[in-house]
Amino acid sequence: MATNQEDVKLLGVVGSPFFCRVQIALKFKGIEYEFVKEDLTNKSDLLLKYNPVHKKIPVLVHNEKPISESLVILEYIDEVWKQNPILSSDPYQKSLARFWSKFIDDKIVTSSFKAVYAVNDEKERQKNVEESTEALQILENELKNKYFGGEEINFVDIAAVFIAFWIPLIQDIAELKLFNAEKYPKLYKWSQEFLNHPAVKEHVPARDPLFAFFKAKYDALVSASK
Amino acid sequence: MATNQEDVKLLGVVGSPFFCRVQIALKFKGIEYEFVKEDLTNKSDLLLKYNPVHKKIPVLVHNEKPISESLVILEYIDEVWKQNPILSSDPYQKSLARFWSKFIDDKIVTSSFKAVYAVNDEKERQKNVEESTEALQILENELKNKYFGGEEINFVDIAAVFIAFWIPLIQDIAELKLFNAEKYPKLYKWSQEFLNHPAVKEHVPARDPLFAFFKAKYDALVSASK
Repeated sequence: MATNQEDVKLLGVVGSPFFCRVQIALKFKGIEYEFVKEDLTNKSDLLLKYNPVHKKIPVLVHNEKPISESLVILEYIDEVWKQNPILSSDPYQKSLARFWSKFIDDKIVTSSFKAVYAVNDEKERQKNVEESTEALQILENELKNKYFGGEEINFVDIAAVFIAFWIPLIQDIAELKLFNAEKYPKLYKWSQEFLNHPAVKEHVPARDPLFAFFKAKYDALVSASK
Repeated sequence: MATNQEDVKLLGVVGSPFFCRVQIALKFKGIEYEFVKEDLTNKSDLLLKYNPVHKKIPVLVHNEKPISESLVILEYIDEVWKQNPILSSDPYQKSLARFWSKFIDDKIVTSSFKAVYAVNDEKERQKNVEESTEALQILENELKNKYFGGEEINFVDIAAVFIAFWIPLIQDIAELKLFNAEKYPKLYKWSQEFLNHPAVKEHVPARDPLFAFFKAKYDALVSASK
């Protein structure tokens, strides 16, 4: 079994925003890795072995040591490979990056997914759309530069790939009004810059097949709920 | 306005597990601070100024710079004051500490509170009791030493103050079966050791007045739901 210093595997699924975060971070750092494609309808023994607690992707495996949870993986990557830092070395700046990334997960990712899944509960759907759009407004006000990281992308930008790519996707699938250029001009401009960043561009999945895949799942959910 | 290097304020409320985490970490590090007592029914201008996003305690204010979210604050404290580290310097050990602390928040804190608040929804109550107790079982299996940190407390132990003190408290208030010495012998032993640790002992609130306070709130909630 290979145990040299750069034995890096990444268990994931194309189409997952959490997997995409890790891909972007590794690309930004210039780290080569083996992509281990998972089938979430038939989880591999490797996934169950490496993430027995949550049984979820992504899992980064570095010299046989598994790390789970996308933001935890991002911190690990930044600590192990020092080039192109995604977190400032200043503790206060670092705490702000952690705060906003957690904010994105707690207030935007969670409520956006809940809005999608609330197919037969208009009140729940509306409540979550409101939570997500209010949080987007807070981020809109927070964005002062080209990227959340300033002139270069950082931890928060990578966490926010969910906003740049997945929110526009899922709002079209579930016919939600979450995000648009008029309401969030700064965030929209950021999303375009970010999606065109060299470390990001090749890792954002192709929209059309993903749209078709998620749309079919969504339609099945709607049918099942009737 | 004082801006010397050790101008440290902590906005909080006695009785909050998240505030208690920060108190323990500061005590462990030997950092003196000014306790700014908040009234959550009438939030101070200071709290609204320093945590405008969540308007929640705890907030650590270090030389006028505010940091929110208890686990983010813990990381900040460990980075700024290097004595008595609560996180390993090894990136992998650090990632494990972050993973388990997030696990405690996502799987134990959240579901335990949901179980308490589900006063008129037995199914929801039961679902959350199951989630919390399953997560406690996972932690029970995970605990291999005196503390999660080994022979000394670390980040995970401090995050887990919720289990040591608040779970026994809220289960008595809401008559839930979450935690006991028979089912979780290792966690129970840990909780006793932890609560007697010199950095912890003086910061865990007195149980009786807190019990009376929360019990009255809980009874009011039950009455209102009828």
